[in-house]
Amino acid sequence: MSGVIPPLVTPVDGDGEIDRASVDRLVGFQLDAGVDGIFLGGSTGEVALLDSRRQAELLDVATSAVAGAVPVLAGAIDTGTARVIERARHAVEHGADAVVVTPPFYVQPNGAEITEHYRRVSAAVGAPVVAYDIPSAVGSRLTPDVVAELAESKTVVALKDSSGDLVTFRDITRHRPGFPALTGSELLADVAIDLGAHGLVPGLGNVDPHGYVRLYRAARAGDRVAARAQQERLLDLFRIISVADGARVGFTAGALGGFKAALALRGVIANPATNPPLSPLSADETTRIAAILASAGLD
Amino acid sequence: MSGVIPPLVTPVDGDGEIDRASVDRLVGFQLDAGVDGIFLGGSTGEVALLDSRRQAELLDVATSAVAGAVPVLAGAIDTGTARVIERARHAVEHGADAVVVTPPFYVQPNGAEITEHYRRVSAAVGAPVVAYDIPSAVGSRLTPDVVAELAESKTVVALKDSSGDLVTFRDITRHRPGFPALTGSELLADVAIDLGAHGLVPGLGNVDPHGYVRLYRAARAGDRVAARAQQERLLDLFRIISVADGARVGFTAGALGGFKAALALRGVIANPATNPPLSPLSADETTRIAAILASAGLD
Amino acid sequence: MSGVIPPLVTPVDGDGEIDRASVDRLVGFQLDAGVDGIFLGGSTGEVALLDSRRQAELLDVATSAVAGAVPVLAGAIDTGTARVIERARHAVEHGADAVVVTPPFYVQPNGAEITEHYRRVSAAVGAPVVAYDIPSAVGSRLTPDVVAELAESKTVVALKDSSGDLVTFRDITRHRPGFPALTGSELLADVAIDLGAHGLVPGLGNVDPHGYVRLYRAARAGDRVAARAQQERLLDLFRIISVADGARVGFTAGALGGFKAALALRGVIANPATNPPLSPLSADETTRIAAILASAGLD
Amino acid sequence: MSGVIPPLVTPVDGDGEIDRASVDRLVGFQLDAGVDGIFLGGSTGEVALLDSRRQAELLDVATSAVAGAVPVLAGAIDTGTARVIERARHAVEHGADAVVVTPPFYVQPNGAEITEHYRRVSAAVGAPVVAYDIPSAVGSRLTPDVVAELAESKTVVALKDSSGDLVTFRDITRHRPGFPALTGSELLADVAIDLGAHGLVPGLGNVDPHGYVRLYRAARAGDRVAARAQQERLLDLFRIISVADGARVGFTAGALGGFKAALALRGVIANPATNPPLSPLSADETTRIAAILASAGLD
Repeated sequence: MSGVIPPLVTPVDGDGEIDRASVDRLVGFQLDAGVDGIFLGGSTGEVALLDSRRQAELLDVATSAVAGAVPVLAGAIDTGTARVIERARHAVEHGADAVVVTPPFYVQPNGAEITEHYRRVSAAVGAPVVAYDIPSAVGSRLTPDVVAELAESKTVVALKDSSGDLVTFRDITRHRPGFPALTGSELLADVAIDLGAHGLVPGLGNVDPHGYVRLYRAARAGDRVAARAQQERLLDLFRIISVADGARVGFTAGALGGFKAALALRGVIANPATNPPLSPLSADETTRIAAILASAGLD
Repeated sequence: MSGVIPPLVTPVDGDGEIDRASVDRLVGFQLDAGVDGIFLGGSTGEVALLDSRRQAELLDVATSAVAGAVPVLAGAIDTGTARVIERARHAVEHGADAVVVTPPFYVQPNGAEITEHYRRVSAAVGAPVVAYDIPSAVGSRLTPDVVAELAESKTVVALKDSSGDLVTFRDITRHRPGFPALTGSELLADVAIDLGAHGLVPGLGNVDPHGYVRLYRAARAGDRVAARAQQERLLDLFRIISVADGARVGFTAGALGGFKAALALRGVIANPATNPPLSPLSADETTRIAAILASAGLD
Repeated sequence: MSGVIPPLVTPVDGDGEIDRASVDRLVGFQLDAGVDGIFLGGSTGEVALLDSRRQAELLDVATSAVAGAVPVLAGAIDTGTARVIERARHAVEHGADAVVVTPPFYVQPNGAEITEHYRRVSAAVGAPVVAYDIPSAVGSRLTPDVVAELAESKTVVALKDSSGDLVTFRDITRHRPGFPALTGSELLADVAIDLGAHGLVPGLGNVDPHGYVRLYRAARAGDRVAARAQQERLLDLFRIISVADGARVGFTAGALGGFKAALALRGVIANPATNPPLSPLSADETTRIAAILASAGLD
Repeated sequence: MSGVIPPLVTPVDGDGEIDRASVDRLVGFQLDAGVDGIFLGGSTGEVALLDSRRQAELLDVATSAVAGAVPVLAGAIDTGTARVIERARHAVEHGADAVVVTPPFYVQPNGAEITEHYRRVSAAVGAPVVAYDIPSAVGSRLTPDVVAELAESKTVVALKDSSGDLVTFRDITRHRPGFPALTGSELLADVAIDLGAHGLVPGLGNVDPHGYVRLYRAARAGDRVAARAQQERLLDLFRIISVADGARVGFTAGALGGFKAALALRGVIANPATNPPLSPLSADETTRIAAILASAGLD
């Protein structure tokens, strides 16, 4: 649980069916770049929009493409304990090496209930569980106290932090340096490593895995100048998620559509379509994404 | 789509398995009280905490107990379109007459994407769809514009409003008086009927269906004094959801645990347990709920 | 503390100076309509944008125009206790009969600290204090417990509720029917009276005081049909606050600019300008407001 | 506008009157530590709870104690443009070299209106204006676009960032490295400097100015190990703001009460009292603060 582990987008065709050839190419593109793991069916993978058949197909194709080269994490993202266990077992049956699990949502649990949730999921699923802190999606936080209890009891094997809250992240890494804390930040990846992150799970890593691998390796080697240079280039590249017209396209569609459009422009996936009901980007927006790619040296 | 349609709690045993005998008794209790429909596997039914096997078992037992006496609505509550379609078809296969569907959550859709979500769900499922506005759970609203489009295009057959926003509710009922708008409010049910609600979906109706049936019928008959008297008794009864110690028990566990404890005290269900990972109420809290029941004349 | 008490807009010229003639006309317009009090320098009166010199001038001109015909309330709106006392004394010196006070803001107080705030303000100011619940502006609520304590100890003489939360409002009026609870709702004024409101403080009352006076008197006389008819006409009129283009004009500027444009169109005030730094409405937006006025019978 | 510029607490006696001797000692304590400026009447200085008389007295005493040794910034914190101008002129009259100004609050402005607010304040006040981004207090953000416009037009001379959002901070410092960006973060001060911060405005600097001065100088000198060591010691010290029992004391009272209790324990100020209506800390809480000071080497 360390290094660069991009949360892959899920390539689909215009009917929302898994585009198997594109999944295969995307996995190859990532492995060639030297990533240390892949994360399937996470937030960036549009897990919220995939039914169980498509999630299974995605895992089947992708794990077969990975062929054991690196560990495969899979999202088991659902509202409550029994539902998560159902999805987690399904993911493991379809090849996942570990599952990534948020606190319950739709309901409003407290800290003790969140801890109990992870205990039950971990006991029921024969695979490592990664705790996923993503308040923008689930509406609650994994507090340092909850993380400490989950880490100490070995209920979870790692934390994926997409909270945007570096103060809490620093608190966790400082008091528990051996516990793998992964950051979901695209824009403060260099800072997170400096504060003790064991790894990176950047959505933008779909588009430029080579960049994040270089950033990670430079930072680990103590070459801060090189790490900073990569990070700054990636800051500029990240503008692809803001190209979509917010009056026409929702936030998720704009961000994930930006990643997919860039991957299609780079020739990695065949179709930039996001899953229904998300709106597609316009031709003009795609042209602007091409320009951003070019200025980041990715054309 | 009118009258009193309580969103039933889901009775489970200590292992989280469906308590079939209690489901049967609860349905009988509701039908005896004269309800006009029942709603299974909604927010009050802990839908977020039921896996597909339990949801199926709940529907099988309950629809068999209802035996066609009244329409059965079922929640098809999930994060995105394909997932909702999977759950909605499953609900219809297990006997639901209609499905209740929220906007996508976990993701952040805009109005056009929410409309598209309902269009696709409605087209894919061979049953009526009820739109469910519950921002406290899903983080977005069904705006009057979206509701108007869904109603006009007959994409949905009714609205269940649990937003707590009577201004928007009034706007919808005033401009579209023929469209069935149901309120989820326990505490302003009389007001909502006065503003044009076609029906009530009160969680507290689990505990006192007779009270809500009397309230509804009195209001419909123009007897405002009688309706008000029932509503005021029910306002006092609603205190059962606030009995749990908020420092120990999460909000959802406290509210749904309160309903279930009251139903167990009334002898309708066997076990007040909520689903994992929610915390149970204490013996002392249950005693206080008994006192509230007594002062509402329900002992 | 009952009846219709409109929160007057503050007429200014293009330099943000008090337009004394317009203040005079606006007060006359309100008194002619039969209002029961006037509220100066509240949220609708752009109190947040008036310095102490302008607030004094406003009070001087307006209280002189009222000439004792009805009580004059004035906002003493500031972030903390000592600041509120300074403003409240100033308001009383310039003719206010009572002051309207929110919980502290900018800081984050708890319930006990909010209660202490009102105790100190009330003890320091030789005039009645009205508690003002407006979470959209100050970020905290006046809970029923705090209101109960303030009412019982006679620390405040009334509540102005602009929370939009009718459940809490009903809780307060039901348990304390003799305590004057005023609603700030323009759109549920009839409902609020039905639930026990002693009076109305509607921003839209600037534009159509006659309508709110008719609504209030009809509701008090038990003529629900007439009250409802007025309320429905006022619902349509309220669209004037949504005319401004939200991409160009902030929310406050759009709402208050709508009131002022309507008053200018009706010939009551000379200039529709809001205070700096709020953006003005466009000519096209003003034309649309004129159309709404016409369809409400106010041209 | 660079270096360590602590936002001083405002020492008061039990009646909320300025404790002049303690102000004097606190300023001396800071100057001895080598700070580069002092900030009076900011959020940490309880500006929201000081009336104009006390704010004047504070400035008079403190600027006299500073005696020109370092620049003096003063908060001109109020809800709207005219009010801010009134307070800013007052601050300058009482010796401030620059004023610190937030966006309007209580009202809801958009970006253009926020820019206009700063333009008018800057034009009206004969002193440099620092823009203050503190969404937790005012409910809106200073976006990078607004900051860019304010910087480019020289409307403001610096930014004080208390948003907790390092992504935006990095965006601003990267694109405008010559513009003085000061961070309000106590816990990521080392990171902020690394990302381009020109200075620190840490509330905790009241209690341990020597620590922040060492941190700042080490970071500027490129000694990351020493800077990190200071930061980690200060992370532990920051626990003094969390000692207060949240069920008894509001958030602001707990945090500022923690700073003041520590300063009283260190003998710098005479009385740990915060301003009304904030609740005081208990004797037990003060004992725990003493223990934290001791373990940070500050007894």
